[in-house]
Amino acid sequence: MALIVLKFGGTSVADIERIECVADKIVRETLAGNEVVVVVSAMSGVTNQLVDYCRQISGIHDASEYDVVVSSGEQITAGLLCIAIHKKGLRARSWMGWQIPIISNDTHSKARIESIETAALHERLEYGEVVVVPGFQGVTEKKRITTLGRGGSDTSAVAIAAALGADRCDIYTDVDGVYTADPRIVPEARKIERISYEEMLELASLGSKVLQTRSVEMAAKSGVTIQVLSSFSDEVGSALKGTLVVNEDEIVEQEIVTGIAHSKDEAKVTVVGVKDVPGVAAGIFEPLAKVAVSVDMIVQNISVDGYTDMTFTVAKTDLALALKTLEEDMEINYKKVITEENVVKISVVGIGMQSHAGVANTMFRTLGEKGINIQVISTSEIKISVLIDSDYTELALRALHEAYGLGADPA
Amino acid sequence: MALIVLKFGGTSVADIERIECVADKIVRETLAGNEVVVVVSAMSGVTNQLVDYCRQISGIHDASEYDVVVSSGEQITAGLLCIAIHKKGLRARSWMGWQIPIISNDTHSKARIESIETAALHERLEYGEVVVVPGFQGVTEKKRITTLGRGGSDTSAVAIAAALGADRCDIYTDVDGVYTADPRIVPEARKIERISYEEMLELASLGSKVLQTRSVEMAAKSGVTIQVLSSFSDEVGSALKGTLVVNEDEIVEQEIVTGIAHSKDEAKVTVVGVKDVPGVAAGIFEPLAKVAVSVDMIVQNISVDGYTDMTFTVAKTDLALALKTLEEDMEINYKKVITEENVVKISVVGIGMQSHAGVANTMFRTLGEKGINIQVISTSEIKISVLIDSDYTELALRALHEAYGLGADPA
Repeated sequence: MALIVLKFGGTSVADIERIECVADKIVRETLAGNEVVVVVSAMSGVTNQLVDYCRQISGIHDASEYDVVVSSGEQITAGLLCIAIHKKGLRARSWMGWQIPIISNDTHSKARIESIETAALHERLEYGEVVVVPGFQGVTEKKRITTLGRGGSDTSAVAIAAALGADRCDIYTDVDGVYTADPRIVPEARKIERISYEEMLELASLGSKVLQTRSVEMAAKSGVTIQVLSSFSDEVGSALKGTLVVNEDEIVEQEIVTGIAHSKDEAKVTVVGVKDVPGVAAGIFEPLAKVAVSVDMIVQNISVDGYTDMTFTVAKTDLALALKTLEEDMEINYKKVITEENVVKISVVGIGMQSHAGVANTMFRTLGEKGINIQVISTSEIKISVLIDSDYTELALRALHEAYGLGADPA
Repeated sequence: MALIVLKFGGTSVADIERIECVADKIVRETLAGNEVVVVVSAMSGVTNQLVDYCRQISGIHDASEYDVVVSSGEQITAGLLCIAIHKKGLRARSWMGWQIPIISNDTHSKARIESIETAALHERLEYGEVVVVPGFQGVTEKKRITTLGRGGSDTSAVAIAAALGADRCDIYTDVDGVYTADPRIVPEARKIERISYEEMLELASLGSKVLQTRSVEMAAKSGVTIQVLSSFSDEVGSALKGTLVVNEDEIVEQEIVTGIAHSKDEAKVTVVGVKDVPGVAAGIFEPLAKVAVSVDMIVQNISVDGYTDMTFTVAKTDLALALKTLEEDMEINYKKVITEENVVKISVVGIGMQSHAGVANTMFRTLGEKGINIQVISTSEIKISVLIDSDYTELALRALHEAYGLGADPA
């Protein structure tokens, strides 16, 4: 017997029919002898509608009342799912964040969970009752409702799994696992059986939108085993057919490269003709930091005649704000600013590359052979990212996937 | 300075634009120096949608989870209204049933309020903050969410007004008061300035759907002055342009007849040819009571040769169930059952008729002069109801309205 936490996202509970499918999976896991806790998102579209209502009234609304409004989406799903489980003859009860309670800090709309009371939940689980928790929500010490920020239901699930000492946290989503590359682009892409927290973190933050970054960080810290799997398949989590996110040392056969991610969400900005003196980088990036524009890849050109160019990437959604800020608030002199939105960031990720030379070289050689120009490079211990013309996305992904032998079945 | 409770129903908060209009009324009442508590319903259509979700899953769903689902509609409105009030520069905070708390019994989906904690609310009101409460919801001692049954937001508002010792409870709706008759049918119908709780109760239960019966009962018991007024008018409640529902002794010039209500919601059933012996009424009405069919008007014919007919009315929505029950479960012998749906119940209501003779006679004579046949009669101390062919609805209402002199301006 195991204690498992199941998390179902918005598309998995999109309508009444899908909610009944979810109830079915829960019944199967329960009848197999498991203690089951379920964390649910709002039905797809509901949260966006509620957020939109708030924005229609005021762009700068009070975050605590925003939380009152948007947290109700998950509450609805939790109640409906309990009714669906009852219909199948099992005991189930919904537990709002304030009922458990899931205590968070008071940073409304992006609160952090501080503690979760578990005694009552363990008691109900031992009694054979399914515990259903609306994700995304908590409550402050002063009993105000909070939300954990978008995608926060993953975080809720991992935090509850950690607090309860669960054996596994199954994140049901619309894909059946984490792949070596996007299978819609690379037909040879293979589902990864086990991946380390560190690799998953890099993939999560690099555009593979399977898991929320914060939930992976939390799982790594608390040692919760996550499984990513599809709610649209007939399998339940205990069949272990998804991708397990685990500690590095639980992966026996560590590949050098685990997967290749790509992201078209970034734009390239080049500030041309700035004086190459100490403080120039700060002169560019401080104004951006002040307006909360995150800068990702940064490259400074070789200096020519005392002048240089500074190239970096920002989220495409931040581009307009970034340009306005550079124009109005940058106190250093420059010649011009050039932007390029037709770019893609391709990243090769693998814990194994820490101990293997030549991983970067394989990437550069492969892209070079296909005539693909690398515009920016950045690296971390377990990742190499390059920025290239987005017209070459498919070509680059397929060529790299083959070059690293990712399509072959692991021995 | 007064403490007033304002209640806004579903059509008054139907969309973002309407919610902003409500915020405007609240601001005006607050700036006039009043302490303001607001009770809101769900945006129109929302509760029906949520109820429908529950029914789609299961006809016999757990009432406590149903309450979790449907109570969220009011929660959404409460948060949105606070954001709209903030935008106008005033302080406001939402208070869920469990935050106040509004303690109810555990009869989920039709719970009764047992107590309301008011210390914190008084403190916030004195501080100049608007208190916004989602109607329709409470919480049990064991911290489960409850709802008060459909239309329960009126009850929430009156209960909160009673607990806080409010000076008035303004029920904003889509009509601007209680009328002497339905103004769509009787053009001369006049808005009533003051009406007693007892008369309002009769009108409420007789098809004038302005206020929920239970909230009027509660107001009568606790002495809360209710005002019925329109949220679509420019006036705010403090202008006292609506209808005040008050104690009988607060009405100086008591009319003999206050208003005329009509209801097309009932159907007539006649059980023909039952033996006129003791127990026959019980033989007919016990089976109906067992399946929760409410019977309204009852008439037993004069006995002929030891046989009689029993005529009564039931809600049209209960008619099919009533017929099936009579056919299958009635243990007495009868000849046949006749039904008639083309009927209307017309009721003349007035506390003054207790001390005036001739009120009933005026009704019978007026209808007789117009050639309208009375099928059933029932009376209470402050009401006379007749059942007639519904083709004569308009004619009867207009004739009675004139006969009682209701169109004339009160002296």
